[in-house]
Amino acid sequence: MNDLLLKSVRPWGDESVDLLIRDGRIAAMAPHLTAEGVEVIDGKGHIALPGLVDAHTHLDKSLLGWPWYRNEVGAQLLDKIDNERQVRQALGLDAQVQSMRHALRSLAFGTTLIRSHVDIDTEQGLKALEGVIETRRRLCEVLDIELVAFPQSGVMRRPGTIELLDRALALGADLLGGLDPCAIDRDPKGQLDVLFELAEKHGKGIDLHLHETGELGAFSMALIFERIRAHGMQGQVSISHAFCLGAPDWQRTQALIDECAELGVTILTTAPASREVPAIQRLIAAGVPIGVGNDGVRDTWGPYGNADMLERAKLLGLRNNLRRDDEIELALGLCSYRGARAIGHESRRLKVGERADLFLATGETVAETVVTHAPRALVISHGRVVARNGEALLPTP
Amino acid sequence: MNDLLLKSVRPWGDESVDLLIRDGRIAAMAPHLTAEGVEVIDGKGHIALPGLVDAHTHLDKSLLGWPWYRNEVGAQLLDKIDNERQVRQALGLDAQVQSMRHALRSLAFGTTLIRSHVDIDTEQGLKALEGVIETRRRLCEVLDIELVAFPQSGVMRRPGTIELLDRALALGADLLGGLDPCAIDRDPKGQLDVLFELAEKHGKGIDLHLHETGELGAFSMALIFERIRAHGMQGQVSISHAFCLGAPDWQRTQALIDECAELGVTILTTAPASREVPAIQRLIAAGVPIGVGNDGVRDTWGPYGNADMLERAKLLGLRNNLRRDDEIELALGLCSYRGARAIGHESRRLKVGERADLFLATGETVAETVVTHAPRALVISHGRVVARNGEALLPTP
Repeated sequence: MNDLLLKSVRPWGDESVDLLIRDGRIAAMAPHLTAEGVEVIDGKGHIALPGLVDAHTHLDKSLLGWPWYRNEVGAQLLDKIDNERQVRQALGLDAQVQSMRHALRSLAFGTTLIRSHVDIDTEQGLKALEGVIETRRRLCEVLDIELVAFPQSGVMRRPGTIELLDRALALGADLLGGLDPCAIDRDPKGQLDVLFELAEKHGKGIDLHLHETGELGAFSMALIFERIRAHGMQGQVSISHAFCLGAPDWQRTQALIDECAELGVTILTTAPASREVPAIQRLIAAGVPIGVGNDGVRDTWGPYGNADMLERAKLLGLRNNLRRDDEIELALGLCSYRGARAIGHESRRLKVGERADLFLATGETVAETVVTHAPRALVISHGRVVARNGEALLPTP
Repeated sequence: MNDLLLKSVRPWGDESVDLLIRDGRIAAMAPHLTAEGVEVIDGKGHIALPGLVDAHTHLDKSLLGWPWYRNEVGAQLLDKIDNERQVRQALGLDAQVQSMRHALRSLAFGTTLIRSHVDIDTEQGLKALEGVIETRRRLCEVLDIELVAFPQSGVMRRPGTIELLDRALALGADLLGGLDPCAIDRDPKGQLDVLFELAEKHGKGIDLHLHETGELGAFSMALIFERIRAHGMQGQVSISHAFCLGAPDWQRTQALIDECAELGVTILTTAPASREVPAIQRLIAAGVPIGVGNDGVRDTWGPYGNADMLERAKLLGLRNNLRRDDEIELALGLCSYRGARAIGHESRRLKVGERADLFLATGETVAETVVTHAPRALVISHGRVVARNGEALLPTP
């Protein structure tokens, strides 16, 4: 069932080999393989790379499939949050449809594992989560999706949100989210206490958006560290964005980074060009697990996101001034198998015995494939062919 | 001669019109135009945008057409400078061939005006300049190229360079270049004195690379300002990169920016994600002219550059956190007609009477065209069709 022999591909840019896929795993990798009764695909000498991992996105927010959204939103975070709820309601957005469009585009680009936040708020309740859970169900054989119950509009400032988050975790969200306990909720102790209690109650991990910069972010992070210790949640907490780890005060920042490493806190970054960001080489040196994400795709927040994690590897390289080939390959690793490990999933390198999640792309070298975010000729996920020439083989709504 | 009627295009994303081009200029722009005996092209409702302007690149450095260059270069600026001279010699690079490849790729992306630095040093003398001048001659009917005699390896630290720069300006370089008078030459007074004297002697402008950050860059900039006043070169000097204008000390930085405005100093940026950079909206508010460039394209410095100024507009937007449609259109303007004005060239907006330098691209809105750096269906330069579907119509060596 679903066995494949992929001829003439160059894993991670190396010499050409054949790749035998059985039961969703790589069964053999060598030149001139043969296998009877198995579908054969000609890889045409393309580079084969491990399935991409989008460790931070928002499947419920995309406006893919809608006319161009003209962005005239204000500059503050709360402007964007309030605007989004209004637009969502005015358009009557269906999170199931939108998340399916977004997920299939990701898959067509070679992403086989997604961690997505989903908005939970007192206006729409669990509606978006139910929609994205349905998308996850429909795609479960070809795409791993884990979901974070995300209080985008705040926790303490909107009574009723806590109860919704509780129900979201019971309904099937894999992790509990949170957002700027100082800047948005203005009650850091309140928000973090309730979130950690709720996560412990459900035995689930936490992934917090932390946009707060400098000392404010460092303060929130210290409160998070305290609660990780108090609840014994070492290795179960991720912090998304973590701009405060890009602050210029070396010593102050290093102490925070070292504590992330000690507590097994995963840092998830989108490597934005316009913000302070944690330097990935510095995090790696300290032993902090790193994942990378595309964040929103064509939503009311901004038009740049396009679901392509190979382009994200390029942006990660540009942001971190990675110019050498080995550095660019590192960026790609973080956007694929290393990112998977950082969010607690099985690695998916191109090795015998590992999962057959991979894609074929043009390019002379791995670095060229990244900097051109080269067209993807073929995507294989969970051992099945799921996309060809940039188009998912499943119908897009 | 070369007259064209371009039917059904949307200038800057507006309603569809026809565009009559005569003698290299836009002669009429209205719905349902007719013209006898004139070639008619169907614009298919594509967005029409003004020709792009690459105000800072290096036509002589690209490795386009060569096998992938595996970058293993050291981290310092001097590592990269020394490495480049070695590679250039080892490969026997021909600046005429390389600049033609680079220029035609730019043209295929819709760029119709380029300011290029060309390395002048005591190893290769004027050889690269001669090659790029030949490329300029061959392309003069379709692409405006202005050349900066650029002492990449330093001025004072390599005796004989000054004489070469003198000859370069006599040979046909349009401007005189320079580079980090402190960090590279370690003799800021010496370098800047000789450069300003040489520029005055030839009656030519100056375009200086200034990578120096913080106080060091501010110091070099102050020396440049002094000499602009002493030589009466207001409005004739550009500073490329100018990272020191991205320094966090607001008051100190504002004083430098205001002095740029007062002296008519144009700031040229590539909007790198990994460096301090001048904020474009701040420069605009102060009245500083701004141009944008791609910098190197696939050279020994790094693999990211690809000659596409529409993608550069996107990177400019990402670096400056431009999310609104009007902000993204501003970024595009800086990469096209505003950039042309900033480096002393005729504007090229899509207006009757202006130059017929334009391209057609897919997209629902201008902002979408930018964020997707959409495929270019057609490029018209100096009134002629020069590229279709991303390929220049002239033969690439």
